[in-house]
Amino acid sequence: MKLVMRTASVLFLLALFASPAMAEKVRWKLAMTWNSTLTPFSTAVQNMARMVEEMSGGDFSIRVEGAEKHKAALNVLDMVKGGQFEMGHSASYYWKGKDITTVFFTTVPFGMNADEQYAWFYHAGGMELMQKTYDKFDAMSFPGGNTGMQMGGWFQKEINSLEDLKGLKMRIPGLAGEVFAKLGVNVTNIAPGELYTSLDRGTIDALEWVGPGMDIKMGFHKIAPYYYTGWHEPATELQFLVNKKAFAGLSPANQAILVTAMKAAAMDMRIENFADSATAWEQMKSEFPNIEVKTFPKEVLQAMKSAADQLYEEYAAQDPSFKEVFESQRAFMKKARTYYTISEFNYIRTVQELEQ
Amino acid sequence: MKLVMRTASVLFLLALFASPAMAEKVRWKLAMTWNSTLTPFSTAVQNMARMVEEMSGGDFSIRVEGAEKHKAALNVLDMVKGGQFEMGHSASYYWKGKDITTVFFTTVPFGMNADEQYAWFYHAGGMELMQKTYDKFDAMSFPGGNTGMQMGGWFQKEINSLEDLKGLKMRIPGLAGEVFAKLGVNVTNIAPGELYTSLDRGTIDALEWVGPGMDIKMGFHKIAPYYYTGWHEPATELQFLVNKKAFAGLSPANQAILVTAMKAAAMDMRIENFADSATAWEQMKSEFPNIEVKTFPKEVLQAMKSAADQLYEEYAAQDPSFKEVFESQRAFMKKARTYYTISEFNYIRTVQELEQ
Repeated sequence: MKLVMRTASVLFLLALFASPAMAEKVRWKLAMTWNSTLTPFSTAVQNMARMVEEMSGGDFSIRVEGAEKHKAALNVLDMVKGGQFEMGHSASYYWKGKDITTVFFTTVPFGMNADEQYAWFYHAGGMELMQKTYDKFDAMSFPGGNTGMQMGGWFQKEINSLEDLKGLKMRIPGLAGEVFAKLGVNVTNIAPGELYTSLDRGTIDALEWVGPGMDIKMGFHKIAPYYYTGWHEPATELQFLVNKKAFAGLSPANQAILVTAMKAAAMDMRIENFADSATAWEQMKSEFPNIEVKTFPKEVLQAMKSAADQLYEEYAAQDPSFKEVFESQRAFMKKARTYYTISEFNYIRTVQELEQ
Repeated sequence: MKLVMRTASVLFLLALFASPAMAEKVRWKLAMTWNSTLTPFSTAVQNMARMVEEMSGGDFSIRVEGAEKHKAALNVLDMVKGGQFEMGHSASYYWKGKDITTVFFTTVPFGMNADEQYAWFYHAGGMELMQKTYDKFDAMSFPGGNTGMQMGGWFQKEINSLEDLKGLKMRIPGLAGEVFAKLGVNVTNIAPGELYTSLDRGTIDALEWVGPGMDIKMGFHKIAPYYYTGWHEPATELQFLVNKKAFAGLSPANQAILVTAMKAAAMDMRIENFADSATAWEQMKSEFPNIEVKTFPKEVLQAMKSAADQLYEEYAAQDPSFKEVFESQRAFMKKARTYYTISEFNYIRTVQELEQ
């Protein structure tokens, strides 16, 4: 009896003093909109999960599930809202059917570049506007990696006039697709796995994917000669989603670990995608020297810009929160672009002129 | 006696099981090259220290000391090497007197921009080359925040020809100063606290600082009419220094926490400095509408470029490690710039042309 009591007090004392070290381990699940093989999008997520695991000394771990497993790529927001997954990794503009304002937290045609957009997120109210938008989904949203300026896509024929766009069959999603539709393009949506064959067989005349780093794995450069420069996705930001209740249940240390890991992983991906693209572009050009980089003629770009502005006006007239975020972005872009032009942009322009 | 034994066993068991939670707290000190008030440089450090403290649940904290306290701004590397401070925050090019190769880990005239340089650091061998350079100082070096493209400085007179540079008195440190000296500029070094007065009283004709966000606090825009665009520091990366033995003594979790916090803080500073500059530039222009942004004429830039190339050749001939890092950067810059030009750069160029 005495012995039992003694053991009991020992256990009690152990529980009392040792609880921080013996706290229940946190085990989360994260659903991606992408397959596990879609690097560097999936790399960003694995990287984030690894950092969380290491920083917490193994007390907080996140199991990452690709779309090949959960089979619900475009259901990630609902699954995070419902709590089946504590986290998701996706892109905000996939939720434009639920709320058109979500597009601004990814990128928009003729919008900010990555330097400008990150400054808007962290120093001009962007994070707060994003959170306001996601409050209705019981989710928190964080930057999840940036592709930088995307390329305008692969075309079988040159686009020399607005006339050349009429009836063109192109895969281009989102607002950019809506802009092209206004100009007479026959915009279609095709699953990623069928894109190569569709372009090769002439089911479509053109398509947009990301940039050299990701495009090279799709093989489009082998079957289409014109690579157009971008206008439509100047700074595509991916997204980490976190269920609000799950986040509130974390210890303050684990909350800080998660937020910091997401931020570092997002930055890592921006860097990785740029590095991948620099290397892939060199490789594409050396293997297929006939690829021509083209910029749409001014007439076409002006029509795209007008169509985009018209689209923004239409949505803003219907939706006050769209209007609020649009105006916040435009005001900040104006001053950020003015400075960008005399600093980053001017440097490259100057050095190029020296080499001519 | 029995009671004593019992207490002893309890304490023994507590020590055995509870040790992870009761591990000795880690208390570090960090010396900055800057005063505590020099934002956003000092903000990056405070931000890093805050993240470490939060993520470790208070088990790992770093006390930040500004140069106003330790009075040894340009002795930070030695103090980290010697272990008086476990960490430092500085800029690698301040150590060029000890090892000229260190300049490449900050920025060099006509070198890479921030996108290119981060890609080089993390995906083209830059981090490994930096560590190799710092091994001899028993220190680890990590990116510590980037200013982006710096402005070329404030000038009292326009520079219209190479002749205008001859005898010009200018404060411009580092390799850029060596380049200007080759062109006949009278390069001087003046303590930051005396810069405003020196420019105002004509002791110097021109000076270089950082960019609008930091320059506005110095007040140069009130006394000099010409703001020249940059060529000399295209992506100034600050530096976290960590004493190697101190790092090795951290738990794996604390090592991961420190590395991740430094990375996130570096990225935060890049964003903050850009945002600050966008806002400051708008403010400067509205308060002093006569400020003129100027780019040096092509003749002058070509001479600067030739002088810089000559300088690189001279140093490379004397120092094999300088040569190794220079060649690594140049090779990567070439392919990165090619891609940058068709993506980020082309977008801004295109949009600007639409607005003309």
